[in-house]
Amino acid sequence: MKKVSVLGAGSWGTALAMVLTENGHDTLIWSHREDQAREINERHTNKKYIPNIQLPEKLIATSDLQKAVDHGEIIVFAVPTKAIREVAEKVNDYLKKKALIVHVSKGIEPDTLKRISEILEETLSTHMVEDIVVLSGPSHAEEVVLHHPTTITAACANLRSAEKIQDLFMNHYFRVYTNTDVIGVELGGALKNVIALAAGISDGLNYGDNAKAALITRGLAEITRLGVRMGGNPFTFAGLTGMGDLIVTCTSVHSRNWKAGNMLGKGMKLDEVLENMGMVVEGVRTTKAAYQLAQKYDVPMPITTALYEVLFEGKDPKDAVDELMHRGKKREIDYLQ
Amino acid sequence: MKKVSVLGAGSWGTALAMVLTENGHDTLIWSHREDQAREINERHTNKKYIPNIQLPEKLIATSDLQKAVDHGEIIVFAVPTKAIREVAEKVNDYLKKKALIVHVSKGIEPDTLKRISEILEETLSTHMVEDIVVLSGPSHAEEVVLHHPTTITAACANLRSAEKIQDLFMNHYFRVYTNTDVIGVELGGALKNVIALAAGISDGLNYGDNAKAALITRGLAEITRLGVRMGGNPFTFAGLTGMGDLIVTCTSVHSRNWKAGNMLGKGMKLDEVLENMGMVVEGVRTTKAAYQLAQKYDVPMPITTALYEVLFEGKDPKDAVDELMHRGKKREIDYLQ
Repeated sequence: MKKVSVLGAGSWGTALAMVLTENGHDTLIWSHREDQAREINERHTNKKYIPNIQLPEKLIATSDLQKAVDHGEIIVFAVPTKAIREVAEKVNDYLKKKALIVHVSKGIEPDTLKRISEILEETLSTHMVEDIVVLSGPSHAEEVVLHHPTTITAACANLRSAEKIQDLFMNHYFRVYTNTDVIGVELGGALKNVIALAAGISDGLNYGDNAKAALITRGLAEITRLGVRMGGNPFTFAGLTGMGDLIVTCTSVHSRNWKAGNMLGKGMKLDEVLENMGMVVEGVRTTKAAYQLAQKYDVPMPITTALYEVLFEGKDPKDAVDELMHRGKKREIDYLQ
Repeated sequence: MKKVSVLGAGSWGTALAMVLTENGHDTLIWSHREDQAREINERHTNKKYIPNIQLPEKLIATSDLQKAVDHGEIIVFAVPTKAIREVAEKVNDYLKKKALIVHVSKGIEPDTLKRISEILEETLSTHMVEDIVVLSGPSHAEEVVLHHPTTITAACANLRSAEKIQDLFMNHYFRVYTNTDVIGVELGGALKNVIALAAGISDGLNYGDNAKAALITRGLAEITRLGVRMGGNPFTFAGLTGMGDLIVTCTSVHSRNWKAGNMLGKGMKLDEVLENMGMVVEGVRTTKAAYQLAQKYDVPMPITTALYEVLFEGKDPKDAVDELMHRGKKREIDYLQ
């Protein structure tokens, strides 16, 4: 049994805290909202993020970040990418003993172009961090809490730390693989949200399954091209955190990025879409970062570029998808390599 | 303008004949059924295979195979895999001038373990064949006839012949890439039907999107492992005819193999499913061939093996999927390489 703190009580943080509690670990979940922590402690529910699910009574919540940091020998960051730097800075102020850090966020910080583990490395004092492990893969929270079979990857340059996290989470419905390619795992998880927005636009235009399959395939090709250039292992992009997560995000009814893209395809403007969604649409921010990365590393990323033009330069979504379909005659291997 | 014959008036043959006619080619489609040929000529419909669609009046049909063979300088085989050898033997008897051969069938012949182009090479006299080109990719006929954007690959060891077929079919909604890796293109197209059956079973068991994404990802990994061992290019499996076609077949409502798997997952027996479907379920035959290939080339293919046991050895589908999920703890790259 380990003492684990999960920072963030959104759908994914709550689902992971359930897995940990069910695995017998002493789990404390932190919410920045006191009423949400009270709901979890008193009613054992988290209705806004995980409707219709009864949480284990052993799962305790707190809105006191100091308490959460004190509790965990393992600390799981499950906050939106946008909040990660701010929360990490506070955590660093409270850290008094060495902890193993896990993060489950998917994104790239625009302008700094940092991956999440890089932000954490920069923010947390080295002597307080045993290691930083990223947990990522095709895993909708809504299915994990129903104990539907799910597979996921724990990645850390130090394989021993990835294996610790594998042991922590693994059970009969939650299967964890290890990987040492942190760059590939983090980029795959972040950039799939860009392609999910594009796939949603294609669906919103009623372009059908053939067009969507082509977008997903060529989307993974451009993600891999950039990722390998940045030091990732090409095999990682063909795995759970690359292709697997991309497929689930582009085809599942649960995907927020796909939904946002779908509304854009149907003709809504970006600000209306964001207002309509109410929740964070990570892919919008990531598209900006991915566009900047493509320029920095001089890698052709036609889908990312087209989406950037739609989101930030007012290009018509239909024109963007049509242009992607009508580029010159090509040999297939050329766009894959 | 070319003279093209399309052999086979199922949904895909009819859709391709429509594309060719719309591109201005003199197209003759052959059906083995006289009443179907008459329906196409007189009413310009093919209701059984392409409901609610009006065919171009310029598209002519015949049930006379000799006539069809005489007509085409390019001959497109669009018959079910099971019938390809028999039709090719007849075509060979009728061939009087050199023709460029295209095939669009997806499968492997059980026991001989031959790919479609190998069957054609074996059956057609070499001096009558300019080249054999395979046309494959994520392309539901139902969407092509509605002019939804579709991308596809034309593959031939001789790139010049692939480019001829690219020119023949390419238009504003039908985008053709070329590739020289015939082995990779044919294997990807055939073996995805095996994974589609498995994905259908998982959905029939209500295992959700996380499980399905994992199955698809690990399915492509095992297809790639076998395909590379047989001489295919790993990039091909990451392309339209590998990943692209796999995604569309595993996630689209139009897929017959997925539907058949879904019924198996819900508890139907194989013979009931096949009776219920009424149409050919290519994946059942291909599973047998894939299982034999895995043994011949000594390549681990856990999903194919599990499916073989379900289809031919009476294994319970739930046990098969559960076993796939509960194999020992693994490093992710191990199963991808």
